[in-house]
Amino acid sequence: MKIKYELITNDNRARLGKLHTNHGTFDTPMFMPVGTLATVKTLTPEELKEVGSAVILSNTYHLWLRPGEDVIEKAGGLHKFMNYDGPILTDSGGFQVFSLAKPKDITEEGVHFKSHLDGKNLLLTPELSIQIQNKLDSDIAMSFDECIPYPADYDYAKKSTERTLRWAKRGKDVHQNANQSLFGIVQGGAYQDLRKWSALETVKLDFDGYSIGGTSVGEDKPTMYQMIDDAIKYLPENKPRYLMGVGEPEDIFAGIERGIDMFDCVLPTRLARHGNAFTPQGKINLKNLKYKEDFLPLDSTCDCYTCKHYSKAYLRHLFTAKESLGGRLLSIHNIRFLIKLTENIREAIKENRFLEYKKEFLDQYKNLND
Amino acid sequence: MKIKYELITNDNRARLGKLHTNHGTFDTPMFMPVGTLATVKTLTPEELKEVGSAVILSNTYHLWLRPGEDVIEKAGGLHKFMNYDGPILTDSGGFQVFSLAKPKDITEEGVHFKSHLDGKNLLLTPELSIQIQNKLDSDIAMSFDECIPYPADYDYAKKSTERTLRWAKRGKDVHQNANQSLFGIVQGGAYQDLRKWSALETVKLDFDGYSIGGTSVGEDKPTMYQMIDDAIKYLPENKPRYLMGVGEPEDIFAGIERGIDMFDCVLPTRLARHGNAFTPQGKINLKNLKYKEDFLPLDSTCDCYTCKHYSKAYLRHLFTAKESLGGRLLSIHNIRFLIKLTENIREAIKENRFLEYKKEFLDQYKNLND
Repeated sequence: MKIKYELITNDNRARLGKLHTNHGTFDTPMFMPVGTLATVKTLTPEELKEVGSAVILSNTYHLWLRPGEDVIEKAGGLHKFMNYDGPILTDSGGFQVFSLAKPKDITEEGVHFKSHLDGKNLLLTPELSIQIQNKLDSDIAMSFDECIPYPADYDYAKKSTERTLRWAKRGKDVHQNANQSLFGIVQGGAYQDLRKWSALETVKLDFDGYSIGGTSVGEDKPTMYQMIDDAIKYLPENKPRYLMGVGEPEDIFAGIERGIDMFDCVLPTRLARHGNAFTPQGKINLKNLKYKEDFLPLDSTCDCYTCKHYSKAYLRHLFTAKESLGGRLLSIHNIRFLIKLTENIREAIKENRFLEYKKEFLDQYKNLND
Repeated sequence: MKIKYELITNDNRARLGKLHTNHGTFDTPMFMPVGTLATVKTLTPEELKEVGSAVILSNTYHLWLRPGEDVIEKAGGLHKFMNYDGPILTDSGGFQVFSLAKPKDITEEGVHFKSHLDGKNLLLTPELSIQIQNKLDSDIAMSFDECIPYPADYDYAKKSTERTLRWAKRGKDVHQNANQSLFGIVQGGAYQDLRKWSALETVKLDFDGYSIGGTSVGEDKPTMYQMIDDAIKYLPENKPRYLMGVGEPEDIFAGIERGIDMFDCVLPTRLARHGNAFTPQGKINLKNLKYKEDFLPLDSTCDCYTCKHYSKAYLRHLFTAKESLGGRLLSIHNIRFLIKLTENIREAIKENRFLEYKKEFLDQYKNLND
């Protein structure tokens, strides 16, 4: 069965909805934690559920290299392999090929590149990406696209956007997993007419959902928000919209304000590994000396396991002593923080006070590391 | 309240007993996981309880350096700091001073050495060790001793053993925490008369329990077992006996056979970090290529979280991809393996078949890495 999006209510352009999947029904807007290598770093599936995680994301490129899609297929698919019975979305590998695996050579066929692990020459094509994802047996697969750098000249952006559409069609043509949904990705760089064209043409291919790609690649915030505006108005109401790679609270608000339903980002786990934690007042770094004898939880309003049981002094100690429990406890908190944020936002949309809640949150939240 | 040892029954010299502590009553013989820096590496206290952990051990030397005993005292003691409400034993720092912190200069006053972290000149004395442990507020503190190297000449061993006794008395004299028990440590190297003398004189000081120290320092197994035999017969029946730093199954059997009640070792967590797991057939290394498509649990007879939910193929993948969840899952299994072993041994003692069970287990268990 394919996923199904059900729109519950709107608050201006912000949408409250439900995503029906083969692994349960979940509310949107939602934040999806990233489990790059079939594990959300340091955490078990039970912990992900405890923090309210719904869909998680895993990376096709990484799983293709290690352990290989055939191993996962033989294990009975990604859910069984990693012991996660909630929904899983796999990306296409496109982003990693462009960001990790350099140098690269983009042809009509696909992308030639060297493995970031051993330098081996590899070719990832739209067909192969989908075939790998079919074997991984995720709930949602993504089309293979080129993530256009920023800035890019118009001519390059146009050619790339047209090729991404041809790739989307080629991927859809070989997609064979009846239990797996397939999303299209809107590109177009920072050009309004290309975003419109990409959205309209991608929608014509009739995917199960649509992603807005090519954001968070170095552009300023107004440009990023404009990219969303230029694409989202052409996306159908009855399909989920996914903004890839976004996890900063202000960007989650900006996306939801424009009608986005799904977000993913490595930010909460990456911050955690480096001793950083979200708080309602902004991010803090637990390694800071001032927390040495701070016996309060890192966020007294938070309902996560970490905040209920540990002090900032203990967390600081774990990081100072390079104990991996520190990264684990902060990962729990940081993921919970973003998921709780989406819970609060959903509540606000339901009560038609999304913009008030946004102001209330962002007035407190300072995007500064202390 | 001090701990209290209750002898339930004997099977030859093997003892089944109960250890009554301020944090609950637990069966002996027991294996104590090691939480060096106020964390049993990668695990939460809830996970330790789930694997049946009773007492855990934490290291005075490490906590003295980081975060410092004053921070832990201000936090309300080690239990509160690390969120563990079971019993905690702290060692004296003696072993770390001798193994980690070189070069050293042993005087009657104590040990002068350089911090293994920053090379700072430090002095640890019997009094300071006890004062730090008082502040940590562990349930059981250990006397400060010299762990005699092996081999050591008779004259050195004799002088060291005599000094360790003087240190034990000095530590006991400053010990002030009424809720904390204090153990004496029998030294004497590999010399029968010194072991006897050390045991008899240490017992005269009337500690709450006794440890046999100076084993696992490079001696062969028969010598190690002889060291236990030479000391344990002089220890009182009504106090617990603790063999420090022992965690290999065959040594746990050998210790229990001789009347030991408590063991600790970093082995299960250290093995786990390197991808090694205990199985009833011996240790295996999950990084081995032969596990790439092995979708069975690592030990189908094991009741731990890891064996109930994950395959060897997945565990291997985590290690290949350097994902820290791997070390965590193997730590759970390895600690459970040793605790389950002590559970089985207790059952066997109760039924007067300790030696049969020992044979049955060791006939299967090959001490080989595959």
